[in-house]
Amino acid sequence: MTTVLKLGGSVITEKDRPETVDRAALERAAAAVATIPDRVILVHGGGSFGHHHAATHGVSTTEGTRDDDAVRAIHGAMKRLNGIVVDALADAGVSAVPVHPFSAAHRRSNGSLQLETHPEAAMIGEGFVPVLHGDTVTHEGIGATIISGDELVVRLSAGLDADRVGVCSSVPGVYDADGNVLDRIESFEDVAGAVGESDATDVTGGMAGKVRELLSLDAPAYVFDIHGLESFAAGGDPGTKIG
Amino acid sequence: MTTVLKLGGSVITEKDRPETVDRAALERAAAAVATIPDRVILVHGGGSFGHHHAATHGVSTTEGTRDDDAVRAIHGAMKRLNGIVVDALADAGVSAVPVHPFSAAHRRSNGSLQLETHPEAAMIGEGFVPVLHGDTVTHEGIGATIISGDELVVRLSAGLDADRVGVCSSVPGVYDADGNVLDRIESFEDVAGAVGESDATDVTGGMAGKVRELLSLDAPAYVFDIHGLESFAAGGDPGTKIG
Repeated sequence: MTTVLKLGGSVITEKDRPETVDRAALERAAAAVATIPDRVILVHGGGSFGHHHAATHGVSTTEGTRDDDAVRAIHGAMKRLNGIVVDALADAGVSAVPVHPFSAAHRRSNGSLQLETHPEAAMIGEGFVPVLHGDTVTHEGIGATIISGDELVVRLSAGLDADRVGVCSSVPGVYDADGNVLDRIESFEDVAGAVGESDATDVTGGMAGKVRELLSLDAPAYVFDIHGLESFAAGGDPGTKIG
Repeated sequence: MTTVLKLGGSVITEKDRPETVDRAALERAAAAVATIPDRVILVHGGGSFGHHHAATHGVSTTEGTRDDDAVRAIHGAMKRLNGIVVDALADAGVSAVPVHPFSAAHRRSNGSLQLETHPEAAMIGEGFVPVLHGDTVTHEGIGATIISGDELVVRLSAGLDADRVGVCSSVPGVYDADGNVLDRIESFEDVAGAVGESDATDVTGGMAGKVRELLSLDAPAYVFDIHGLESFAAGGDPGTKIG
């Protein structure tokens, strides 16, 4: 069994305070991850680390930069957060190792992503838990753009033939038009009117993009908040099941 | 024109003092790199950063570890050195960006390396200068081993169809049996008796391995010390030409 789990940047950081970790949430998440019996691949978002720098430099998933200072600033901030996350996981007993997408991927000029997953396949085969993060990515023709944690979750889940996918977010699931959490989404048309884009400086798309991409996977995906994470880790069905 | 250049760990660090940079040598090297008119890919060795941790944990290019603490310690030390090297290059006006091999490679159980070079190809195409380093690498069956800067130089030079290869080392070239620097080596038999293994705690092989691997390349390779670096950067023929 292989589980891909995303820890949202808004879950593990104070999203409105630059480069500030939500230590209690991170430690709770790390403790939950340590209980997952499967092979695990983790991805985390940028929260107040990556988004701040991306916004400052005007870089998004489609707006590029050739400024190497910008690449180093965004990538460096995400590596600082990744180091903190990896350390918290290690302290909780998880065999966490850091993986930096900028080193392993690029986008073609049409925006399509070339990312190998053989390093992660080898890592989980050897008992390690790779921990990836939203990052900069070299983009043919426009320098470098952003790769979101959500895009990584989808690519890793498909490439590693994941059995279960979890997206631990700032909301308890996907809301319907009345503000109630949906138990299940089987097609995008079910929810297209209800899900919008996220607010603040999230350069990497909101719930609509998440739902659309998670529906493309063979494996069932769950969207839940930190209160659903222990249930997900134990094999339960928290939040909204997608697919 | 594409140039692959390795800065030896013994050149840019104080090899006998744990995690100590040779700041003067690093700044001289960065200034020389800034003068290279070609597309450039840089690789640096571990010196007193990586080798110390690798030796402590008993990890080499063939001896593996499943201890995730060991992987994080070795990889983390190399990322610290890489950050210092990238910053020094940026200060010298080089559009340097960090690339971490652990994220992009693995070894099969027979030791062969699977490493994509499309990220670096995209980076140099966009005007960035990727800076890689000796690192840990997941190794099927035995956890994780070491990938040396020399192995990376050879793989990147072949994968990116390099036109020139430079190895800036602690010696002014490859010595013959009488201790004189050879101008040129065209086959390993020419020098097999004269080149030995390096001493101290270099876990990643010495001059014999370098020569053998550099001979396998289509591009001419040069082995020289820091005093030959400006000449290499300007298109000259310092030290020993191999191939």
